[in-house]
Amino acid sequence: MSQVTEHDFLREALRLADANTTSLAGGPFGAVIVRDGQIIGRGANRVLETKDPTAHAEMVAIRDASRYLNHWELTGSTLYTSCEPCPMCLAAAYWARIERIVFSADRYDAAAVGFDDDFLYRELVAPVEARQLPIQQDLPGEGRQVMERWAAHPDRVPY
Amino acid sequence: MSQVTEHDFLREALRLADANTTSLAGGPFGAVIVRDGQIIGRGANRVLETKDPTAHAEMVAIRDASRYLNHWELTGSTLYTSCEPCPMCLAAAYWARIERIVFSADRYDAAAVGFDDDFLYRELVAPVEARQLPIQQDLPGEGRQVMERWAAHPDRVPY
Repeated sequence: MSQVTEHDFLREALRLADANTTSLAGGPFGAVIVRDGQIIGRGANRVLETKDPTAHAEMVAIRDASRYLNHWELTGSTLYTSCEPCPMCLAAAYWARIERIVFSADRYDAAAVGFDDDFLYRELVAPVEARQLPIQQDLPGEGRQVMERWAAHPDRVPY
Repeated sequence: MSQVTEHDFLREALRLADANTTSLAGGPFGAVIVRDGQIIGRGANRVLETKDPTAHAEMVAIRDASRYLNHWELTGSTLYTSCEPCPMCLAAAYWARIERIVFSADRYDAAAVGFDDDFLYRELVAPVEARQLPIQQDLPGEGRQVMERWAAHPDRVPY
């Protein structure tokens, strides 16, 4: 039997993406998480089907792998995704301690068919006052106190 | 009865955050989504309890509101959160079409107690080759073709 290659994992992500063009469960995005040569999580975009705006392929795959490992850290894993992750999914990969990402289509391919991930990347680096989504701070002292109470808790689990 | 104010909504987010210091379900973060003066979604960080690295307070609240409205768009909503959203949650707010964000503690308060959201903001703007999480493109033509097949689908739902 031939060796499983990186391309096989990436093509499994592409297969999941392509399946959405038939099912219309969501946009044409798929992802798999691989550790020690095995797929430990799979996901396709399910925004339309589940009415969940966070149900991007990579998020679904990360949650699937976390359930499989029963842990919020996927240390040692690679994320293969049919398209360059949007900022939400890229940040989620950091939180999940994923160690490497391989993608096929890029943010410009996505924008060409109406998914403006590139806009989001620009927004996140824009100064707060220049962003299209207004964001402001209020009651700063009360929020800081909540943090400090947590930091003082003897049984807290750092993560 | 006195008028419900913005501070009441933000303090509900802070209450949810503070409750985690007792329950230890996750970090000290809470969020509510408000539309037309009503709370339509609530969330607290549940990363530790659910072993889901994406279960930040804002994500939980967005998913809760989406379930309530049975829609992936939360147009007209404001997100009140106990702490400045990390890039994952900020991007999720854009995808959910949230129109305004109010936060209490900021990313530096979070970093002071061990949640390095500021590091993530720096990573997302860093050139790809300078990032700590390596990311690379492969099979670009195959990914683009998946996108093109989807774009050509007559029944696709743009979102």
